[in-house]
Amino acid sequence: MGKILIKDCTIVPISGPVIAKGVIAINDDRLHYVGRADGLPAGWQADTVIEAGDMVALPGLVNAHTHAAMTLLRSYADDLPLKQWLEEKIWPREDRLEREDIYWGSKLALLEMIRSGTTTFADMYFHMDAVAEAVVESGLRASLCQGLIGLQDTSNKRLEAGISLVKEWHGAGEGRITTMLGPHAPNTCTPEYLTRVAETAAGLGVGLHIHLAETRGEVEDVKARYGATPVALVNKLGLLDLSVLAAHCVHLTTEEIAILAEKKVGVAHCPESNLKLASGVAPVKEMLAAGVNVAIGTDGAASNNNLDMVAETRTAALLAKGITGDPTVVPAHKALVMATLNGARALGLEKEIGTLEAGKKADLILVDMRQPHLMPPNDVEANLVYAARGSDVDTVIVNGKILMARGEVKTLDAEEIYAQVTKRMHKG
Amino acid sequence: MGKILIKDCTIVPISGPVIAKGVIAINDDRLHYVGRADGLPAGWQADTVIEAGDMVALPGLVNAHTHAAMTLLRSYADDLPLKQWLEEKIWPREDRLEREDIYWGSKLALLEMIRSGTTTFADMYFHMDAVAEAVVESGLRASLCQGLIGLQDTSNKRLEAGISLVKEWHGAGEGRITTMLGPHAPNTCTPEYLTRVAETAAGLGVGLHIHLAETRGEVEDVKARYGATPVALVNKLGLLDLSVLAAHCVHLTTEEIAILAEKKVGVAHCPESNLKLASGVAPVKEMLAAGVNVAIGTDGAASNNNLDMVAETRTAALLAKGITGDPTVVPAHKALVMATLNGARALGLEKEIGTLEAGKKADLILVDMRQPHLMPPNDVEANLVYAARGSDVDTVIVNGKILMARGEVKTLDAEEIYAQVTKRMHKG
Repeated sequence: MGKILIKDCTIVPISGPVIAKGVIAINDDRLHYVGRADGLPAGWQADTVIEAGDMVALPGLVNAHTHAAMTLLRSYADDLPLKQWLEEKIWPREDRLEREDIYWGSKLALLEMIRSGTTTFADMYFHMDAVAEAVVESGLRASLCQGLIGLQDTSNKRLEAGISLVKEWHGAGEGRITTMLGPHAPNTCTPEYLTRVAETAAGLGVGLHIHLAETRGEVEDVKARYGATPVALVNKLGLLDLSVLAAHCVHLTTEEIAILAEKKVGVAHCPESNLKLASGVAPVKEMLAAGVNVAIGTDGAASNNNLDMVAETRTAALLAKGITGDPTVVPAHKALVMATLNGARALGLEKEIGTLEAGKKADLILVDMRQPHLMPPNDVEANLVYAARGSDVDTVIVNGKILMARGEVKTLDAEEIYAQVTKRMHKG
Repeated sequence: MGKILIKDCTIVPISGPVIAKGVIAINDDRLHYVGRADGLPAGWQADTVIEAGDMVALPGLVNAHTHAAMTLLRSYADDLPLKQWLEEKIWPREDRLEREDIYWGSKLALLEMIRSGTTTFADMYFHMDAVAEAVVESGLRASLCQGLIGLQDTSNKRLEAGISLVKEWHGAGEGRITTMLGPHAPNTCTPEYLTRVAETAAGLGVGLHIHLAETRGEVEDVKARYGATPVALVNKLGLLDLSVLAAHCVHLTTEEIAILAEKKVGVAHCPESNLKLASGVAPVKEMLAAGVNVAIGTDGAASNNNLDMVAETRTAALLAKGITGDPTVVPAHKALVMATLNGARALGLEKEIGTLEAGKKADLILVDMRQPHLMPPNDVEANLVYAARGSDVDTVIVNGKILMARGEVKTLDAEEIYAQVTKRMHKG
């Protein structure tokens, strides 16, 4: 930590217009100044100076929905019918994952996310204390929850694990870790269980992270069992009176979109996973028009197969146009807002992160624009969304700490992680 | 040139199963041996040895449709209705492009393509002698054609330029350049002009490169004017009796798909451009089922906004699943075939390139798999298609010549290109 000065960069603050040849001053974990060079408070001296002449600074990307440790199952099973993929491949292998596997799989995910510009992510999985440990080491910011399946005899035990995570890890890592409860989905939890989880979350003062309306199968299932569509059901059960992060939201009625807007639900749109699993395409144009807070997530690496938020944001922007026949939907600036500020809002962190403004936490990335695919420098926001890659991210700062400089991650040992995950998947 | 030995790599030959710990021997411009190390002909000695322990070798990617020099217009105009984008932004700026602009814009495109693993591309634009000059210098392979608009008084002059390109450049650059005639589209050429271009191509012994059925507007326009859909019209006019590369093919009837298969038309599927311009999504599942040769192209950088075939292949594979609701469509291996062998076929080059087989031209790439987003090494083809990025390409060899090693392009000067394209776009 200390005082960092980033000089001579183009700034995309999200909260306002692009600033050419700007400077960013960081004091410990917070942004001290963001703006033109001549506005830097006189006498302010940095310990570390970053010359960023070819760089664009923007808020760190927020991956609003993932299952980090599933990097272990990246490219482990693909191109199969959904039921076969889950029941014959993913679930049996997942059942054999132990705590240490989750720890190393998460570290691989954190390395991948830092390298591609993600500074904050929302995670739902199991053995979450192992994920939390990896997050603390990595320097990233995360909103963690235990996934709660509420149909099995392990439901109570899982809820206890979820509560423990909140009690033991909320606020850990200099406040970088926050927590939620994670009821898996309305077709994998009974209404009674969902209600109990929501009451528990209210008691703990945390929000909920849930999968909602991901597949047609889920919608049909929930309608047949409970006579309501997924969003309507969880609203009726009172879940949406809490702060809710809802992943997917692919199959929605107009009424459900209105509910998501009214209840200020944060939607984690996961376009690549939805395409790859053939779940469908979420109605992003309609959600945005209704005022829903749409953020972007990669989902887990078994169904993507990467955690690259730069690519995911590009897909979100392209797909929304192609699917609606309207090339003006999700323009470049809006896509960047979705990948940053909307993600921060969806995680309840918009007062601390999501834009580059003095007083906020110093979570930012520098993207090296001196690349053949980003030349000539016609428009910085369009280049970031439509042409950039995750590998163009040069520097990552979270909570005022430099996690990556010139593409080199400081907090994690890549070779050790590669050896561990390879060994753990080979053991079968 | 000379003798190159690539050691200890995983080989994805496309023509057969994946080979672990394989070797590739290159003799001048051709593949001498591809296979297990113990099968290398005894006594064969290399001048250059590439240690490729963490690498995957596969045929160079074939970008089956682009307008290289449009890199100049990358992120120049975005997020606009199609008519406004074309008429107010792209066409007026394009009209002011001079020969030297095309040369430098093409060099930027070639640099970008080499860096992201493309070894062959099909190009349609104007001042094509400038493009050909850049191709010769770069070391890439290309199928070039002059775009022929057949509704204006410049139509004859353009056809003459197209014929000159064929006569002067076909076979240039040690045979790396081939040529076609490029009638722009059935709604920008009269039937008489299309017929004349086809007859001229037949006389010259070259094929045709055309845009077909890109937008609903084109289909409606052609039907209203000529009483036939685009594919049916050009078939009736005899164009499809030649070797034809047809870009886009988004809006097709079942009958038109059957015609494309029967006439062995090479389709350049451009999913990202079709999404970004909101043209729609091509019926890839249906075309593949009917036996159509579907290749992949990026289109120009004004509508993509990059020329990254790794990303384009990923989008093609994901989109085909999401849009059909069938997660088994375009599995990883098929996507790689589309990006390599199908591209070679579409350009009439399948006897020379598109697979890694002894006797074919030595056009190949090495991808560095030791990356966080490609770990653990569960499945090499799935990792290449679903998780890799253009920036993972480490080495590019075309016609037996190393164009890029360890990410460094040998044949083009990046700094000079950046300076030139920036200056040329600034002049307005």
